[in-house]
Amino acid sequence: MAQAQKITPRAKDYSEWYNDVVMQAELADYSPVRGCMVIRPHGYRIWELMQRALDDMFKATGHQNAYFPLFIPMSFLAKEAEHVEGFAKEVALVTHTRLKATGKAGAQALMPDPESALEEPLVVRPTSETIIYAMFAKWIQSYRDLPLLMNQWCNIVRWELRTRLFLRTTEFLWQEGHTAHATEAEAEAEARQMLGVYRTFQEDWMAMPVITGRKTDGEKFAGALRTYALEALMQDNKALQAGTSHNLGQNFAKAFNVQYQTAAGGLEYVWNTSWGVTTRMIGGLVMTHSDDNGLVCPPQLAPVQVVIVPIWKSEEEKNQVLGVGGKVKEELARAGVRVELDARDSLKPGAKYFEWEAKGVPLRHTRRNPGRVVSGSQGSTRSAFHPRRHQAAVSRVHEGRGWIRVRRLLWLSRVRGRDQAADGGNRAGAPRSRIPLG
Amino acid sequence: MAQAQKITPRAKDYSEWYNDVVMQAELADYSPVRGCMVIRPHGYRIWELMQRALDDMFKATGHQNAYFPLFIPMSFLAKEAEHVEGFAKEVALVTHTRLKATGKAGAQALMPDPESALEEPLVVRPTSETIIYAMFAKWIQSYRDLPLLMNQWCNIVRWELRTRLFLRTTEFLWQEGHTAHATEAEAEAEARQMLGVYRTFQEDWMAMPVITGRKTDGEKFAGALRTYALEALMQDNKALQAGTSHNLGQNFAKAFNVQYQTAAGGLEYVWNTSWGVTTRMIGGLVMTHSDDNGLVCPPQLAPVQVVIVPIWKSEEEKNQVLGVGGKVKEELARAGVRVELDARDSLKPGAKYFEWEAKGVPLRHTRRNPGRVVSGSQGSTRSAFHPRRHQAAVSRVHEGRGWIRVRRLLWLSRVRGRDQAADGGNRAGAPRSRIPLG
Repeated sequence: MAQAQKITPRAKDYSEWYNDVVMQAELADYSPVRGCMVIRPHGYRIWELMQRALDDMFKATGHQNAYFPLFIPMSFLAKEAEHVEGFAKEVALVTHTRLKATGKAGAQALMPDPESALEEPLVVRPTSETIIYAMFAKWIQSYRDLPLLMNQWCNIVRWELRTRLFLRTTEFLWQEGHTAHATEAEAEAEARQMLGVYRTFQEDWMAMPVITGRKTDGEKFAGALRTYALEALMQDNKALQAGTSHNLGQNFAKAFNVQYQTAAGGLEYVWNTSWGVTTRMIGGLVMTHSDDNGLVCPPQLAPVQVVIVPIWKSEEEKNQVLGVGGKVKEELARAGVRVELDARDSLKPGAKYFEWEAKGVPLRHTRRNPGRVVSGSQGSTRSAFHPRRHQAAVSRVHEGRGWIRVRRLLWLSRVRGRDQAADGGNRAGAPRSRIPLG
Repeated sequence: MAQAQKITPRAKDYSEWYNDVVMQAELADYSPVRGCMVIRPHGYRIWELMQRALDDMFKATGHQNAYFPLFIPMSFLAKEAEHVEGFAKEVALVTHTRLKATGKAGAQALMPDPESALEEPLVVRPTSETIIYAMFAKWIQSYRDLPLLMNQWCNIVRWELRTRLFLRTTEFLWQEGHTAHATEAEAEAEARQMLGVYRTFQEDWMAMPVITGRKTDGEKFAGALRTYALEALMQDNKALQAGTSHNLGQNFAKAFNVQYQTAAGGLEYVWNTSWGVTTRMIGGLVMTHSDDNGLVCPPQLAPVQVVIVPIWKSEEEKNQVLGVGGKVKEELARAGVRVELDARDSLKPGAKYFEWEAKGVPLRHTRRNPGRVVSGSQGSTRSAFHPRRHQAAVSRVHEGRGWIRVRRLLWLSRVRGRDQAADGGNRAGAPRSRIPLG
């Protein structure tokens, strides 16, 4: 009870509600480093499940993962004029490489050793176009090396003044795809293909309907020819940018001299694309589905899909009910279900219910009296957890897509309802950038 | 041919041989950032396969993944005296958060904006004990919160003067396990358990025999009570430290005030462990198995387990042989084998053989004349790739553990041979720290 009351209702304060849901579900926590968050196990598991699904889609479309340095020489950023302008005011700069004792006590005990100052400061990557295309220049010689299709899963730092858990943090996790192509048409097709991959993931896995569109020139990525974006509608009628895909043209190829020999023997600059989604998607997931009782999570992305909450009144009942619970857990786990048995004796069942509901577990199994359900054999362990309901649980979890269809319909009807309430064409809460695709 | 000749023989220059194998197999490349490497797709795939196997073992032993900030406030490092002493001379320090135009051209066009200087510099994590235990202090209240078993996959920066691809780089990838326990005995058991997990992985997956032992006080981790390590013997008779597991005692718990209420109502400091393995393992894999023709990779960790090299003399033969190749590839992929069909027409078969051998592909399938093997029907596509040999390939890949047993026996006999050649007890190339475990 106490737990559930800690969540501020949406109607009272939407922003507080969001923070409460994230904290109560133990998705993330504030860290002692300004603007940086800690992603706790329950939140990180969602990210792992997202990663697995997206990574499979990236590999199915021919991309390979690689890893590029965290640090970018300061001068690299300057090579593409719009790019440096876009990022100059939000970069973390490494300038020294040793600590020195000051002789003072406490927080003042150390200082950067002036003798360790770097000749050229290093930028902690705010995005990796510059360092990656410097490597592409080394690897690409001929049209036979194209297309080059890469992706990187990594951490990113952008010095943000106002931060919100998952939605905007100084450090965040993401993937960034980077590709090089022989023609503009191929790069354009790639940028749009990956936008489609993101849409498929966000709609089919996250059950988060999105609107895709092209950004205006004023809003496009710093250094891009064209930027496509996905925007999702949140419960406060505001749009959340959920991903971007850029046709970079030849801007970076020219800045980093990424050229290839054509089949005819000529020399041309390559055409690049880059595209990314971040841990912000977890914030989008929270705001799309959750309610005043806490996180609501699509079964495919739920860290725990089924929780078993056993209830006992005596030691004997406890042993019995935990014995059955353990077996049911094993059975479900074998069927590929992510399942937990909550055997804690420090919490009452009601407190456990509220905790697991706040954590967004799709299905809870419990039984007040382990014997009552069984016709004939009081106390039989076999039926104590309603095996048939567990079978149903397995099916419902595996039929997550059905759940998603219902959610999408609900959402779309809500969006349409708002359309009519607003002034016709100018939809309340619609994404700013909805220039139609193609 | 040209490719293979680029690998310096081990006997001539072991160090050059290692670099050549890494570069020729396209595992990694030098980056424009001093001491930082790029992990190329072929090398990163090995890391992904290592991660998957280890992560399953971590989860099976009850650990959950989480993510903590890249940055650590400078003052945090100072809280554990030995810890700061151990890392003070190799940390990257973030001191500014904005770039400023200087008005100059080229590499001098930018400088850190003096107005963006941080009040307290941030350390790019050289390891995460301090930031993680600061969070543990927030999450741990009672004995019921223990043990707390976490792991993090992330990047790490230690400013190294001399670097070698995979073996010692300024930035590297690793996992760091961090746990908190109620008693010293539990922490000690955890530290040793994880040492055992590493041994299992390195011997059963990497086929790299290791010797485990306890580090001397002079060599233990900065801030640890006891450090256990795994040492593997490389082909140059030198030991490579392949992983460490630390019983941290209550050193960090006291520095960060991580206390818990006991069942009896008292207040105690927790006992911590931390343990990690890094991308250095890829260097160990290279040096354990590879030869003068390039990378040799255990099938379980091979990014490509089978390569199909089709050969044709006419356009008709090409279509035929690629058609069959595609089907065989699909069949193998369905059987769970990582397989490539090398359809490039820009390289002769001999060049392809050398390239794939350098990349450590366990099995190659090829056929000079697609018709010759088929009794009766000249040019039949069905038999052109010897289906029976593919069946054998699937079995051999899936029987990788057999391959590993043979490798280990070969290795152990080689090590023993050296024992006898040397002065009895004092084994040539034996790890420095081989104080026996318990």
